[in-house]
Amino acid sequence: MNKPEFKKISVIGLGLIGTSILHAINAKKNEDVTTFAYDLNSKHRDIVSEMNIATFVCNDIHDAIKNADLVILAVPVGSMKSVAISIAPSLKKGTVVTDTGSTKSSVINDVNPCMPMSVNFIPSHPLAGTEYSGPKSGFSTLFKNRYWLIVSDKHTYQTNKLSKFFESLGSIVEIVSAEYHDKILAITSHLPHLIAYTIVGTASDLEADLKNDVIKFSASGFRDFTRIAASDPIMWRDIFLNNSEAVLEMLQRFNEDISDLQKAIRKKEGQKLHSFFSRTRSIRKKIIEAGQI
Amino acid sequence: MNKPEFKKISVIGLGLIGTSILHAINAKKNEDVTTFAYDLNSKHRDIVSEMNIATFVCNDIHDAIKNADLVILAVPVGSMKSVAISIAPSLKKGTVVTDTGSTKSSVINDVNPCMPMSVNFIPSHPLAGTEYSGPKSGFSTLFKNRYWLIVSDKHTYQTNKLSKFFESLGSIVEIVSAEYHDKILAITSHLPHLIAYTIVGTASDLEADLKNDVIKFSASGFRDFTRIAASDPIMWRDIFLNNSEAVLEMLQRFNEDISDLQKAIRKKEGQKLHSFFSRTRSIRKKIIEAGQI
Repeated sequence: MNKPEFKKISVIGLGLIGTSILHAINAKKNEDVTTFAYDLNSKHRDIVSEMNIATFVCNDIHDAIKNADLVILAVPVGSMKSVAISIAPSLKKGTVVTDTGSTKSSVINDVNPCMPMSVNFIPSHPLAGTEYSGPKSGFSTLFKNRYWLIVSDKHTYQTNKLSKFFESLGSIVEIVSAEYHDKILAITSHLPHLIAYTIVGTASDLEADLKNDVIKFSASGFRDFTRIAASDPIMWRDIFLNNSEAVLEMLQRFNEDISDLQKAIRKKEGQKLHSFFSRTRSIRKKIIEAGQI
Repeated sequence: MNKPEFKKISVIGLGLIGTSILHAINAKKNEDVTTFAYDLNSKHRDIVSEMNIATFVCNDIHDAIKNADLVILAVPVGSMKSVAISIAPSLKKGTVVTDTGSTKSSVINDVNPCMPMSVNFIPSHPLAGTEYSGPKSGFSTLFKNRYWLIVSDKHTYQTNKLSKFFESLGSIVEIVSAEYHDKILAITSHLPHLIAYTIVGTASDLEADLKNDVIKFSASGFRDFTRIAASDPIMWRDIFLNNSEAVLEMLQRFNEDISDLQKAIRKKEGQKLHSFFSRTRSIRKKIIEAGQI
């Protein structure tokens, strides 16, 4: 059995990501690893206790982190600051603290100032998820073949260790800057979610307006949007509040493009529509080739 | 074995829908049924011949329809008119002609005036599909538990017969008006596709602008959009040209809603975002309950 990168791992936040990390650690059956789990919500702690996926489920956040050599903050990005303030006094010297939030500049601004000098805070983000949330939604293969981005200016001994740990959970790791991360995620994740939420809301209003069967006849396309728009509302509220600049920039680009297509439909410009739709088809092919389906 | 509703069935257009109809008919193994297949593209005819899913693959469209008691037009909606003009002189008296197009008012306007008085044209639309196209993309269970909408003002002997036939392919049939159909489809299918095409295009431009890895890191959300945006470009060009009024109306509603959310993000109105995202989550639940996942 390989020597584990971290022997005492603390997972704060027992939702989809937190419990999936615990499942993935357990799947490796490494007896040298001890896990500590904590969630603000006592019901979530009870569920995780019953599921028996952590060595210790702690009722006190300090108990959950005081012995850890790796602390993973898997809470909504809007809660990062208060969690960081809360754990800071009890962190062991040399501990690596990471997070799994979908926005990185905001998390760095919130967490970094709270961390003691003796602790290494290395933000990260697994590009993995489903529309389900809560402690029962996790599973051990969530991170398999998915990118896990580490946000750092440089490769260090600690980023290297963290990278190996994420790889051990099945991920492909890349090191990027916070600004780069936030821009990429704004277009590939945040804006698609915003749009899915919007169109499902628009359809719901229409159903009320016309007393009709929009939902009953929900066709392909819309069904996919409703899946995306079923994701955790608190998590997504926090993402839009904390990556607003990049999201608004991407939304502006999107609005310009949809105005173009709107005009093409109004003016019945078939050739323009056909060219546009043909171009996007090739992008799907590239994603399949990149193994990210 | 049940007596079939139609004994001689002609399928014009051998793409995803046309070949799936042939597969679904074959799956019933009813020896009383003869099928005739035709596509303008000779390569598609050759592929369907090799697959051996039609009793006869005809090189001449007239041979494919002259003996049929049911003719199904499974061609892009922009081609309905020319196909209707072409087949009209050879249709047998009493034949039922239907289509599978995603827009209904335009198809009625295009096809109805060409049909002889002795023929029953009853438009229809199966709410089923995938992002794949062409003769190899079809499969026998495509219509299983999916709505197949028949567009008619009244229930007649012929709509009843057609309804039973579609049910025999696995569908749930409802009779609706053309206007109602076009409005529902604009919001549940046409607008989601337009938006998916747009955002994938926006991301692709960004990748070129920033020389970055939008596609490589395509996260959940975006991946679903690229799937939708991989659908057949000709089919979708025709849909937007032929249901432009309803699509533009829905797009206007969508634009109003996204402006609201944009403002909420800019003004950091967390409560408003949270309420909105919570509401859309319940819609997904309703669709799952309706068995349309």
